[in-house]
Amino acid sequence: MDVASLYDKHRATFERAGEACRERHAWSPFPEMPNKYPDAAAAQARGLAAFQGQLGRAFALEQPGRLGGTAGELGEEISPYTQEPLGITYPRADVDGLFEAAERAIPRWAAADARTRIGVLMEGVERLFRDDLFAIQQAMMHTAGMSPNMAYAGAGVNALDRAIEALVYADMALAAVTPAARWERRFGEAQVTLAKRYRAQPRGVAVCFTCATFATWNAWPSMMASLATGNAVIVKPHPGSVLPMAISVRTLRAVLAEAGFDPNLVTLALDSVAEPLGKVLVKHPKTAIVDVTGSARFGTWVEQHAHPALAFTETAGCNTVVLESADDLDAALRTLATTMCMFSAQMCTSPQNVYVPRGGVATASGTVPFDEVGARLAAAIAAVGREPKKAAMILATVQSPSTLALVGQMRDEGARAGRVLLEPGPYAHPEFPRARTSTPLLVQTDPAHGALYREERFGPIGFVVECDDARDALAQATGDVKRHGGLTAFLYSRDEAFIESAVDAYSAAGAQLTINLTGPMPLNFAAAYSDYHVTGLNPAGNASLTDLGFVASRFRITQSRRPVAAA
Amino acid sequence: MDVASLYDKHRATFERAGEACRERHAWSPFPEMPNKYPDAAAAQARGLAAFQGQLGRAFALEQPGRLGGTAGELGEEISPYTQEPLGITYPRADVDGLFEAAERAIPRWAAADARTRIGVLMEGVERLFRDDLFAIQQAMMHTAGMSPNMAYAGAGVNALDRAIEALVYADMALAAVTPAARWERRFGEAQVTLAKRYRAQPRGVAVCFTCATFATWNAWPSMMASLATGNAVIVKPHPGSVLPMAISVRTLRAVLAEAGFDPNLVTLALDSVAEPLGKVLVKHPKTAIVDVTGSARFGTWVEQHAHPALAFTETAGCNTVVLESADDLDAALRTLATTMCMFSAQMCTSPQNVYVPRGGVATASGTVPFDEVGARLAAAIAAVGREPKKAAMILATVQSPSTLALVGQMRDEGARAGRVLLEPGPYAHPEFPRARTSTPLLVQTDPAHGALYREERFGPIGFVVECDDARDALAQATGDVKRHGGLTAFLYSRDEAFIESAVDAYSAAGAQLTINLTGPMPLNFAAAYSDYHVTGLNPAGNASLTDLGFVASRFRITQSRRPVAAA
Repeated sequence: MDVASLYDKHRATFERAGEACRERHAWSPFPEMPNKYPDAAAAQARGLAAFQGQLGRAFALEQPGRLGGTAGELGEEISPYTQEPLGITYPRADVDGLFEAAERAIPRWAAADARTRIGVLMEGVERLFRDDLFAIQQAMMHTAGMSPNMAYAGAGVNALDRAIEALVYADMALAAVTPAARWERRFGEAQVTLAKRYRAQPRGVAVCFTCATFATWNAWPSMMASLATGNAVIVKPHPGSVLPMAISVRTLRAVLAEAGFDPNLVTLALDSVAEPLGKVLVKHPKTAIVDVTGSARFGTWVEQHAHPALAFTETAGCNTVVLESADDLDAALRTLATTMCMFSAQMCTSPQNVYVPRGGVATASGTVPFDEVGARLAAAIAAVGREPKKAAMILATVQSPSTLALVGQMRDEGARAGRVLLEPGPYAHPEFPRARTSTPLLVQTDPAHGALYREERFGPIGFVVECDDARDALAQATGDVKRHGGLTAFLYSRDEAFIESAVDAYSAAGAQLTINLTGPMPLNFAAAYSDYHVTGLNPAGNASLTDLGFVASRFRITQSRRPVAAA
Repeated sequence: MDVASLYDKHRATFERAGEACRERHAWSPFPEMPNKYPDAAAAQARGLAAFQGQLGRAFALEQPGRLGGTAGELGEEISPYTQEPLGITYPRADVDGLFEAAERAIPRWAAADARTRIGVLMEGVERLFRDDLFAIQQAMMHTAGMSPNMAYAGAGVNALDRAIEALVYADMALAAVTPAARWERRFGEAQVTLAKRYRAQPRGVAVCFTCATFATWNAWPSMMASLATGNAVIVKPHPGSVLPMAISVRTLRAVLAEAGFDPNLVTLALDSVAEPLGKVLVKHPKTAIVDVTGSARFGTWVEQHAHPALAFTETAGCNTVVLESADDLDAALRTLATTMCMFSAQMCTSPQNVYVPRGGVATASGTVPFDEVGARLAAAIAAVGREPKKAAMILATVQSPSTLALVGQMRDEGARAGRVLLEPGPYAHPEFPRARTSTPLLVQTDPAHGALYREERFGPIGFVVECDDARDALAQATGDVKRHGGLTAFLYSRDEAFIESAVDAYSAAGAQLTINLTGPMPLNFAAAYSDYHVTGLNPAGNASLTDLGFVASRFRITQSRRPVAAA
């Protein structure tokens, strides 16, 4: 591999990505749908074969510090589609060994030109796309439980887009530092001329925690942001969703090694549900950066305890919907229902709480009373779950049994604290008869029972919240976001003044607002290069994909200066 | 005041500053020496008169939440030049009142165009220069105790340069966010076109802590970074050094008000040594950003406890010098001695520990034995203190009696753990006979007594550390920096390979390295637009003046999006 030319190889794509980041229009170098992938059928077959060939076997990953004997193997993934163990075991390393190997790998990597690093990482992105995408698609299906299309798009090409986006911002931050300067000034009678050199010094070893349901989407950009700025990364996947990250780590290690760098810049740290490693990794004395996608509880703990390491978190909150008025309420409710069903609402962007004025919602054909709004939303959600093929495509499966348990618990609590508008239940998956599934629960309640819905209730669980009026609905929704977190927000209104007040209120609360969107686009679709993901203004996370703040502190600027001899 | 045109008024200067930041050459819009100030004599007379007219009086500052009765006045400044109280009292406000007023002021300020805010703040910088510089010079002399020249340059124009520099970086980060985008993509058969709007949303209320000895230098850039990104700032000065910040706050409030913004964007929070407010302010629920210059102890506490507020710290460490070899050792020692004396080493950049090989230091005229190196450094330092006029210019005064106490304590501990090479003692200031002064203490010791010197010993205190050899000297010095903090570092060596290893080692340790500098420029001179101040890689602080990381997270990006009706 000609390392020096890698940046040039990817320059056109990288520069085009930079333009998209500046202008925030729609763009991707990748085909959005699997059938547009080059030689799609063959590639899909290869990916499926790679996945199936991996089942029941040890995952081949050469990395340092492997523990001996049975302690050196871990693996507890279970497919949500078959509810059978994948039977894949992964090498388990001692933590100190991983950190030491990572630290040793950094100096040569950090000494390379920034564009050299970015060239190598763009090559890594290309390899993941070219060699691994359909294996990762299968891996995402059978660990996270998502539909094939989401596993290809959301967890595949869109996540690679976010990786490139992170490289664009890293490049921008690094390019702001000149490597050298000549500085001349008089001090009294003397002319002083100094030659100054500046260096982007990485912080050290980053630890990247990935979640069970959407590992790649946050992990790839976080890894790229740390690596581009000269750091090493230890990936700590959720024990239930290891394979997508194991493939990613193996491929990036191979690309680094081919490029002449130490592959230990990227390693995998395994743990188990019974013996979690999370806090050990965060508090390890060599940890310099922590990226976390996961529960709000762990994310907040990391924010509070990572010091002196930097913490970047993306956790969860209660994503809110305000229904003030709508030209076509049913169109709005259909889109909302589909989005509330999407991947069984196991996304940090899934809407959860729908705030509705007690007096109902004005439409082109008159006001729809409050109770009927809830009933129509319940019917629209039920319609998604009724057709198995549609349900399979949209709801897909439920990643964890604990999510099913939560649905049951919320159903009972909801019945006590309000009214169950839609009873949850399994649907029969047309291809995987043993798939773990659930149609959504929908509960009607009110702010007096706010404890029910003022946090993320992970999974297919929604609430219709009865508010005094539209102004109260907006105040309740944005107040809940500010205090309890929220990433996305949705509004239907025909009143421009109300819309503007909602734009201001959600901006202050820190949730991205989508207004009056109906039709086939999922309401919570987050486009790389265009939509900023997480604001950092409320408890749902402190980092944003991707702004300068996501990259600018992952390296620090050091300098030296010395006199230039007089000519 | 024509607000819309303020940016244009300052555009040429601002763009020139941006060029300096990119290229890092020497530049300033301000005259470096007081005698080059426009109509200098008259301006100095006005500044002196303003200062003297303020003595013994209440400082006029209209701000909200003033406490009633005697609780509403505070003032305990004492001039290090006269050791007399200044007798100035300042309004004291209830903390909640300040936060509420600051919060109310933010929305209009945040809604203004970024360049409008920058225009107003550049006008603020100009006013401080035009109207207040010599009053601030007197205030810095009679609170911090610095020499007139340092009070003009370091605490005056150089600090204003750092303020402009912070505005340049804030502008860069804000300009990376487009205000609007049009986004078009197909979803199945449907074409979706969204209009997106993006907004720089400030975090909220920033609290800026300033230190007793160099208030303006960190405070002005921190304030500018927060204000430019749309936040409000509450300034909490050290109770012994209020006046420079009170003048700054009053002037910035006046400029904001003239520009039509709420002056409560900038307020002053007073406390006393007996009843400190620091932790209350850091943990206040409305605190969104904390900037701290001060002790390592308080800085670390803030880093650990500021969450969910962002913390930017610049504290202290042990700044190190490695003497490996030198063409002209005496020239090196003279410059080093002057720098160790500068403002009685009450700067966070003052060198403290000099690491010398046991075998001595090679020079053009042979090796100078270890003991003689220490003796010659002591002699060079003694020479500075011997001439009252030179001592007054260089050593100036000692800000706090506790610093004098520490000098005495270190003298005794040094005598036990090593050898006193130079006894400290007062020198007679030629103009202020009651000035609080001390010539430096110099102690020789070794790494077995590292507890003596492995932290900042604030004030005119230096150590010569006996090391096994040059390699050990470098390892000791950089190890001490990495573990105990350090901002600046200094090296004398004729060995290019050794120099390169030192550049690498200090880069990893995170101290700025100055190599082989002799002559009239103070070794620790930090030039705005050129020298990055603090790296964030060791315990001496987590922020840097000024990089993108200093500004990029002070605001967050929010967005809204809605369909564009088909044409």
